[in-house]
Amino acid sequence: MKIVILGSGNVATQLAEALRKVGEEIIQIYSRRLKNANELALKVNAKAIDNLNQVDASADVYLIAVKDDAILEVSQELKNFKGVIAHTSGATDIDVFSSEIENFGVFYPLQTFSKNRKVDFREIPICIEANNISSLETLKNLTSKLSEKIYEIDSEERITLHLAAVFVCNFSNHLYALAADILAAKGLNFDLIRPLIAETAVKVMENLPSQVQTGPAIRNDELTIKNHLELLQNSSDLKEIYEVLTRSIILKYK
Amino acid sequence: MKIVILGSGNVATQLAEALRKVGEEIIQIYSRRLKNANELALKVNAKAIDNLNQVDASADVYLIAVKDDAILEVSQELKNFKGVIAHTSGATDIDVFSSEIENFGVFYPLQTFSKNRKVDFREIPICIEANNISSLETLKNLTSKLSEKIYEIDSEERITLHLAAVFVCNFSNHLYALAADILAAKGLNFDLIRPLIAETAVKVMENLPSQVQTGPAIRNDELTIKNHLELLQNSSDLKEIYEVLTRSIILKYK
Repeated sequence: MKIVILGSGNVATQLAEALRKVGEEIIQIYSRRLKNANELALKVNAKAIDNLNQVDASADVYLIAVKDDAILEVSQELKNFKGVIAHTSGATDIDVFSSEIENFGVFYPLQTFSKNRKVDFREIPICIEANNISSLETLKNLTSKLSEKIYEIDSEERITLHLAAVFVCNFSNHLYALAADILAAKGLNFDLIRPLIAETAVKVMENLPSQVQTGPAIRNDELTIKNHLELLQNSSDLKEIYEVLTRSIILKYK
Repeated sequence: MKIVILGSGNVATQLAEALRKVGEEIIQIYSRRLKNANELALKVNAKAIDNLNQVDASADVYLIAVKDDAILEVSQELKNFKGVIAHTSGATDIDVFSSEIENFGVFYPLQTFSKNRKVDFREIPICIEANNISSLETLKNLTSKLSEKIYEIDSEERITLHLAAVFVCNFSNHLYALAADILAAKGLNFDLIRPLIAETAVKVMENLPSQVQTGPAIRNDELTIKNHLELLQNSSDLKEIYEVLTRSIILKYK
């Protein structure tokens, strides 16, 4: 398949490299900034472009991995093409595409991406959706080369998935960051709790999280909760988070 | 060394098995319930007891791995012994031990334990504290057989560590549980986000969490935040958690 990637951020970078690795032909990388397009294009042997008028009309798939609020604008410039135009956003409905576009869909890899950290795509669930059977087949073909975990997911389901992803990824990472701040304030190294972070995640690979909940809240250990809140008395932000999550745990398991 | 373990819960079980594995002699397992003491004693070739009067006075180390609020009571029954009496609690000050006890301390493995999931003790930071140099040496010797990560941590530092542990372990796991609920309500499988949970944790093994924060809050993506809150409008608990954590992320990175 001939593929054009629109975008040069974390998702675009990881996706382009993974597709190239499995032998797909990336013909162009588009970015508003030619420098960024060039940087990624070099890695995947593609041509860099910075103008949507230059997009090759003969590609089989156009993967739009730009900021959510730019998907509409980018897709409008591709509307006479025959190839499948797909965005990669968890939070964006398939209806973002105008009915003037013939073949379109969504290709959402459910993972957190950094530019410089390679992830194993075979382990990543990829959620696809399309406006017709031939577009769906094209996206399925493409996905099957990358991952064994292909899910047909409609837009409503995908937005629910994206919300759940915010809880387990963005919010959990923020709790890690707050813990790092708590430790740093006492001169303690973040290394001390890294093994605990790893084990907490590993535990739910085979269990449901509600089966392995531990800690003072589920034990209703009022003394420890009181001591923790005292330690947090000078930080209204941390104290509020501690209280809200503790209350939620007690509520769930009472 | 001859060791007595007081307790038969998750920490006691994992600790007894790990000590036995590195060749230490566990002479007794105490539990208020003989059945529980027996179950663990069988695994580690020890004698089960259910009465504190039966505790062997000749052990080198007594590890108290009972509920926090029972540590005082258990330790009172051991006060004429010469061996080092140490509790394993993150949340309990070393001062819990009466001055009538000669040698005492704390042996706190910073990890989350389940009864049936073996953990690799060599990777677990073990925080130790003692009331005198000889007790400290005894605890160091014991620790060095289990783990390469020995930290001398005083009670104030340890309670801070325990608070940080609640954030990264208990609270993160609760976010996983809430995400599982969000998915289940739409008939979506928790498997879909397991790879994301794993990657989120792996990312901070080499980075600080504040360096890898992603998501709508840090991007100040108001539309996505608004859409997520609409999805949560029928759950005041989830909505409050979403709002509090989103506000905290915005506050931290603004």
